[in-house]
Amino acid sequence: MVKIRPLGDRVVVEPIEDDEMTFAGGQLVLPDTAKEKPQQGKVLAVGPDIEVKDDDGNIIGMQAGDIVIYAKYGGTQFKTREGQKLLILREDDILGVLED
Amino acid sequence: MVKIRPLGDRVVVEPIEDDEMTFAGGQLVLPDTAKEKPQQGKVLAVGPDIEVKDDDGNIIGMQAGDIVIYAKYGGTQFKTREGQKLLILREDDILGVLED
Amino acid sequence: MVKIRPLGDRVVVEPIEDDEMTFAGGQLVLPDTAKEKPQQGKVLAVGPDIEVKDDDGNIIGMQAGDIVIYAKYGGTQFKTREGQKLLILREDDILGVLED
Amino acid sequence: MVKIRPLGDRVVVEPIEDDEMTFAGGQLVLPDTAKEKPQQGKVLAVGPDIEVKDDDGNIIGMQAGDIVIYAKYGGTQFKTREGQKLLILREDDILGVLED
Amino acid sequence: MVKIRPLGDRVVVEPIEDDEMTFAGGQLVLPDTAKEKPQQGKVLAVGPDIEVKDDDGNIIGMQAGDIVIYAKYGGTQFKTREGQKLLILREDDILGVLED
Amino acid sequence: MVKIRPLGDRVVVEPIEDDEMTFAGGQLVLPDTAKEKPQQGKVLAVGPDIEVKDDDGNIIGMQAGDIVIYAKYGGTQFKTREGQKLLILREDDILGVLED
Amino acid sequence: MVKIRPLGDRVVVEPIEDDEMTFAGGQLVLPDTAKEKPQQGKVLAVGPDIEVKDDDGNIIGMQAGDIVIYAKYGGTQFKTREGQKLLILREDDILGVLED
Repeated sequence: MVKIRPLGDRVVVEPIEDDEMTFAGGQLVLPDTAKEKPQQGKVLAVGPDIEVKDDDGNIIGMQAGDIVIYAKYGGTQFKTREGQKLLILREDDILGVLED
Repeated sequence: MVKIRPLGDRVVVEPIEDDEMTFAGGQLVLPDTAKEKPQQGKVLAVGPDIEVKDDDGNIIGMQAGDIVIYAKYGGTQFKTREGQKLLILREDDILGVLED
Repeated sequence: MVKIRPLGDRVVVEPIEDDEMTFAGGQLVLPDTAKEKPQQGKVLAVGPDIEVKDDDGNIIGMQAGDIVIYAKYGGTQFKTREGQKLLILREDDILGVLED
Repeated sequence: MVKIRPLGDRVVVEPIEDDEMTFAGGQLVLPDTAKEKPQQGKVLAVGPDIEVKDDDGNIIGMQAGDIVIYAKYGGTQFKTREGQKLLILREDDILGVLED
Repeated sequence: MVKIRPLGDRVVVEPIEDDEMTFAGGQLVLPDTAKEKPQQGKVLAVGPDIEVKDDDGNIIGMQAGDIVIYAKYGGTQFKTREGQKLLILREDDILGVLED
Repeated sequence: MVKIRPLGDRVVVEPIEDDEMTFAGGQLVLPDTAKEKPQQGKVLAVGPDIEVKDDDGNIIGMQAGDIVIYAKYGGTQFKTREGQKLLILREDDILGVLED
Repeated sequence: MVKIRPLGDRVVVEPIEDDEMTFAGGQLVLPDTAKEKPQQGKVLAVGPDIEVKDDDGNIIGMQAGDIVIYAKYGGTQFKTREGQKLLILREDDILGVLED
């Protein structure tokens, strides 16, 4: 399987299909008037410039395994021969992390 | 319920509908000539880059629970399956905090 | 009454109507050829990033109560239910302070 | 008389009419092919961010009383009730100081 | 053979043809809806501003021999008389490194 | 005679007419395909932000008396009553110094 | 002969004609699909802001005598009376140095 090590502040995300967005007891629904459609995905790898914890050990960033929200606009997408869809985003394209 | 941990300088806000803007004894009304319509909302969570207090302990920023004014333009909006509307804004999109 | 605590480098200003600009013995009149119409207003509150004095105690910035000149362009305006017009500007939009 | 205390890197200038530009034994004349018409004016006040002298006491900037050249483009102009024309410019709009 | 020493943050890459992208057990396939087509190539040389390891010796960047993914857009391409295609990219154009 | 003290990183230059560009044994001729026509001029004064020498005393910048090349585009030009043409440029508009 | 001392991060380059690009055993050929045509030239002089070696003495930049590749776009070109073509570029316009 192809594995990608992201550079700098980039993040490799596996997008979650719309009909699968039912985790954590909630589903994000987009209103018709939205200007920028938010998407969800699972973080597979984060680049070396991304800080997960601050100096006191508090979680401030994202890490592999997190479910994140990102704006649809932006990023480079492709899929592997096995059919896995992947997306490379910058840290700044990630809006937040979904928590239970 | 979906809970979002905002990243960086982002803020999760729950918009307040126009006909509910009667808190604190005042209501903000938009003149017809306004170029940029201000909105109000309740802060649900703030990202790790947002400072609430300065070194002397004075409140200088916003925190969860604050009612804030923000420009309508900008931000990413969506709603949860339970129908809760949410908006993710950057700190710089927030103009001020309403106080009693 | 609604009170707004401005964030960052923002300033809450109450605009002064044109026919009231007679304070301090002078009135600012705009020539027809002006590209950018200057306005006057009273500062109600300044954000935490705005410095009023330098290290030697000299007044270098603005503070609540000052009458300031600002460019008409820019800022977010609205009014309270009581009819008070308010304007939220950035520090950089303020050109100067009127003095007696 | 209205007196303006400029903020930041701003300068209050009183423009000199074209037919008055005869000071210091010279007159600046604009060639027809000029893209950007230079203007002259007298500095009335400078903002707190403007340095007049360097650490060794050498004059490096402008101060009240100086006759300066500035590009016509830019700045905010208005006049007082007494008819005095004023212009608020940024330090960077001032090209140079005329000397005898 | 021509050898190029890249300056600053530039990288010399030899593009990999589409029908050769079968290394590491996977092949990247571009979906029809992709806005920005990712490409693969082999790093031949990296400029002096590119850090391969951090202070603890961890691999954080790319080095000669790495297979990288980059956006098709950007970069300067040419080929040598021997027919070797070369591409000079900036570090920021490289999205990630493919690993086994 | 009008003398101008340039501010910041500005330079006062007296342009050299095309038919006078014969100094130093060479003449710069512009090819027809040139996108940006280079001009020559004599430096009359440099602003306080311009460094002429580095810490070791090596000449790294320009000074009054130097003949410089600059791009025609940019700068503010005017002439004195005596007919002297002057040009105020920024340091960054000066491409190089002609030497014997 | 005219000699130019480049300022700041500028480089004086003598372009190499297309039919002369046969040095070092290789010739760069431009594919038809190239968006940005690379050119070659000989460095005649480099400005004072350009670092040739790092603190350990390693060659990291360019110096007089180097053959460099640069994008055709950008720079100011002219020729001397003797017919020598010269080009003044910024360091950032130089993509790499050709080596044997």
